[in-house]
Amino acid sequence: MKETEPTRVWRSEAGKRPIAAADRLASEEPLEIRVDGQPVSVTMRTPGADDELAAGFLVSEGVVRRSAEVARVEPLAAGGTGNVVDVRLAPGHAVDLARLTRHVFASSSCGLCGKVTIEAVRGGFPPVGPGPVIDAAMLLQLPDRLRAEQPGFGETGGLHAAAVFDVDGRLVAAREDVGRHNAVDKVLGYGLLHGLLPFAAHVLMVSGRASFEIVQKALAGGIPIVAAVSAPSTLAVELAEESGQTLVGFLRPPRLNVYAAPERIRFAD
Amino acid sequence: MKETEPTRVWRSEAGKRPIAAADRLASEEPLEIRVDGQPVSVTMRTPGADDELAAGFLVSEGVVRRSAEVARVEPLAAGGTGNVVDVRLAPGHAVDLARLTRHVFASSSCGLCGKVTIEAVRGGFPPVGPGPVIDAAMLLQLPDRLRAEQPGFGETGGLHAAAVFDVDGRLVAAREDVGRHNAVDKVLGYGLLHGLLPFAAHVLMVSGRASFEIVQKALAGGIPIVAAVSAPSTLAVELAEESGQTLVGFLRPPRLNVYAAPERIRFAD
Repeated sequence: MKETEPTRVWRSEAGKRPIAAADRLASEEPLEIRVDGQPVSVTMRTPGADDELAAGFLVSEGVVRRSAEVARVEPLAAGGTGNVVDVRLAPGHAVDLARLTRHVFASSSCGLCGKVTIEAVRGGFPPVGPGPVIDAAMLLQLPDRLRAEQPGFGETGGLHAAAVFDVDGRLVAAREDVGRHNAVDKVLGYGLLHGLLPFAAHVLMVSGRASFEIVQKALAGGIPIVAAVSAPSTLAVELAEESGQTLVGFLRPPRLNVYAAPERIRFAD
Repeated sequence: MKETEPTRVWRSEAGKRPIAAADRLASEEPLEIRVDGQPVSVTMRTPGADDELAAGFLVSEGVVRRSAEVARVEPLAAGGTGNVVDVRLAPGHAVDLARLTRHVFASSSCGLCGKVTIEAVRGGFPPVGPGPVIDAAMLLQLPDRLRAEQPGFGETGGLHAAAVFDVDGRLVAAREDVGRHNAVDKVLGYGLLHGLLPFAAHVLMVSGRASFEIVQKALAGGIPIVAAVSAPSTLAVELAEESGQTLVGFLRPPRLNVYAAPERIRFAD
């Protein structure tokens, strides 16, 4: 399965009769995620890192936190499509699947909508602790560093990306997906499967905007610094303030905006 | 409730000590959608057109098709947040709520993942008929026309947009939202509430990419032409081919790419 696929396209310039040409598209297919055989979620995703996506999804949902809780992630051959994956939990490990089931079914019953407390919005994840500090100069390098890890975007223009760096600028993992949230889940899943969570001295860098859900996923992974190429939303900023996370937006060298917890950034004089 | 809200931001240039400034953010809050009092969905959205969003959501889900099926859409004062809305169906009108419930619960049981047929992907919506035809020169005007309807994006850089035009270029409705899908649901909801569906001689223009779900929502509204500023995905192109929809991507004057059904576009010689 490929992250991009060939297609043919009709290209027109200035409204003139088009010319047929070869092109590549970002792959998008549905993935069913199961936990110990029980279906819990379906997401439209770019194939290629399904084990990480499934593991990261469970981290984002607050169902698993450490690699010891997951025995393995198995692709299932349902229908031969490769679009079903089963997360097998560690034997004897107690996992709050009810939480997940509640969440999935509770698409239909909102715990937030009648409330004004941001506490409810935080989803039960603890706030991050103080530190670490990152140089502004290092932050300013991250968009180019991320771009270098986006071969699929280069081919198609149709893939979002997310990456985790440590505060010294070392790349931990970068992943692409047609879905912004999936790209983040994949890097969280990489962290879980490699025993690296929480990412407590790290930055999450995303190619697009910083929505509430992006900041919440970072919080689920224990990530204290979130940086986005584009704009944050009101609720993203509120969550970052509440959780103590540093939130950087419009990270477009030589400029950047800080929306929450600027004390983690060391600026030049 | 506003589509954008004021905030303060720290702006840094070239990594230097930042300057505090006033800025505006795209509003993001959860919305619970109920049908005749029964909660059916929660979505993170930009407040401001909740009645259209709720109505359009039900169109996208295939639950309602014509304005006569909806009596009214009522905001509920739950908790005083304005984040709950109730769609009251027309008295005596039979609506397949089971379909919706199945869909919501069926986040946990995928009808697609074990199948290879695109038929299953189409979600039960009929294909569009032949016609209409639009001038390529008209298509090339739409990105600027859409941009003129994006005051919130201008303020924040954080809002997606969708608009419906007829093939003569008349704007029917344009809406903004932090969520791409919500912006499309809002214009579909506008159409439903004003008795304009199906949009059978119309173009859906979106500010971002064309994913499977965007093309599917257009199909739910009967829209034969979908145009996006950015890239389509593989499944978006497959659905457009299967449903007979014209799909235009990378609509960036003077260029455009056609990915499916180019016969609806009249090119210059």
